[in-house]
Amino acid sequence: MDLERITQRLHAIRDQNDWQRFHSPKNLAMAASVEMAELVEIFQWLGEDESRRLPAERLEHVGQEVADILMYLTLLCGELRIDMDAALQAKLADNERRFAR
Amino acid sequence: MDLERITQRLHAIRDQNDWQRFHSPKNLAMAASVEMAELVEIFQWLGEDESRRLPAERLEHVGQEVADILMYLTLLCGELRIDMDAALQAKLADNERRFAR
Amino acid sequence: MDLERITQRLHAIRDQNDWQRFHSPKNLAMAASVEMAELVEIFQWLGEDESRRLPAERLEHVGQEVADILMYLTLLCGELRIDMDAALQAKLADNERRFAR
Amino acid sequence: MDLERITQRLHAIRDQNDWQRFHSPKNLAMAASVEMAELVEIFQWLGEDESRRLPAERLEHVGQEVADILMYLTLLCGELRIDMDAALQAKLADNERRFAR
Repeated sequence: MDLERITQRLHAIRDQNDWQRFHSPKNLAMAASVEMAELVEIFQWLGEDESRRLPAERLEHVGQEVADILMYLTLLCGELRIDMDAALQAKLADNERRFAR
Repeated sequence: MDLERITQRLHAIRDQNDWQRFHSPKNLAMAASVEMAELVEIFQWLGEDESRRLPAERLEHVGQEVADILMYLTLLCGELRIDMDAALQAKLADNERRFAR
Repeated sequence: MDLERITQRLHAIRDQNDWQRFHSPKNLAMAASVEMAELVEIFQWLGEDESRRLPAERLEHVGQEVADILMYLTLLCGELRIDMDAALQAKLADNERRFAR
Repeated sequence: MDLERITQRLHAIRDQNDWQRFHSPKNLAMAASVEMAELVEIFQWLGEDESRRLPAERLEHVGQEVADILMYLTLLCGELRIDMDAALQAKLADNERRFAR
């Protein structure tokens, strides 16, 4: 996943629509949480086993909602100049220290 | 961001702790949403302008919560065999069609 | 707010639609969180001041989303035999002890 | 549930702590959503059946989180002068029309 290229394309869309004034980190976090709930909604009435074998159209829907979340997280990290990959690497290494034998 | 390598490392942690039985897509979506709220919590009482100029320790906290969300989304996509990068590319192209002039 | 009467009416709707099997506390909590995000969505791009002076139709929308959340919380407390009013009184008294001078 | 009395007590706590400037509807919705996630967190790794038979201490925890959500929703409706009980009655009647035979 080429985060730099993705950020550029997201910024191009944002700037063409004059959305920058809406894109405070506070608002982007809210927007990401709304998209997250749209992901959760897909699973809310499913049993756990059912959630493992989704039909193709639901799988596509899951992918779309995950993508929406990723876009807002990328924009959020862009505003705050957080290196998303570095943050993930650090957290992963931390989890390996804490939970791996 | 090398999603394949990240998935492998997350699966190693999961398997060493016998967490696979907890990792239904339904549960992983819930867990991701809980981490999302921890991200939102950082911003809940801040003004929009304040949210643009966070002190270093808060920035680090933001990075950690973003990383937690990404880890659960990666695990979710792993369970459902969704290609997260492809899903993001598709959604980005769709947004460009809809919102770019 | 007559919680007992509300619970009865919610149970009548549930039973007429055979929804009881879906109404595990886990699922009801998820459903409540999805409704919560629909509430948050109303505010996501608004400034704080704007959020104080909503036009009538948005106010009605807020009321509807709040009601959806309350319905799921009432159903959740019904399943777990939690007295929602008593829980609220206890928490309020606790907050008064901690935060009132 | 005496919503008027609850609102008065919440406002007393708020005013004694000078929190009114934080209590924009936008922020209160965010805060409610963060509390909602704390409710969801209790259930995230539980099976549906497990979620129906919680031990006493978890039940108490559920009650506390529900109460936290209710407090923020009450404050939100207070700011916007929304009658929470009327909103609930309207939504219930609407659901009865749509879903009751």
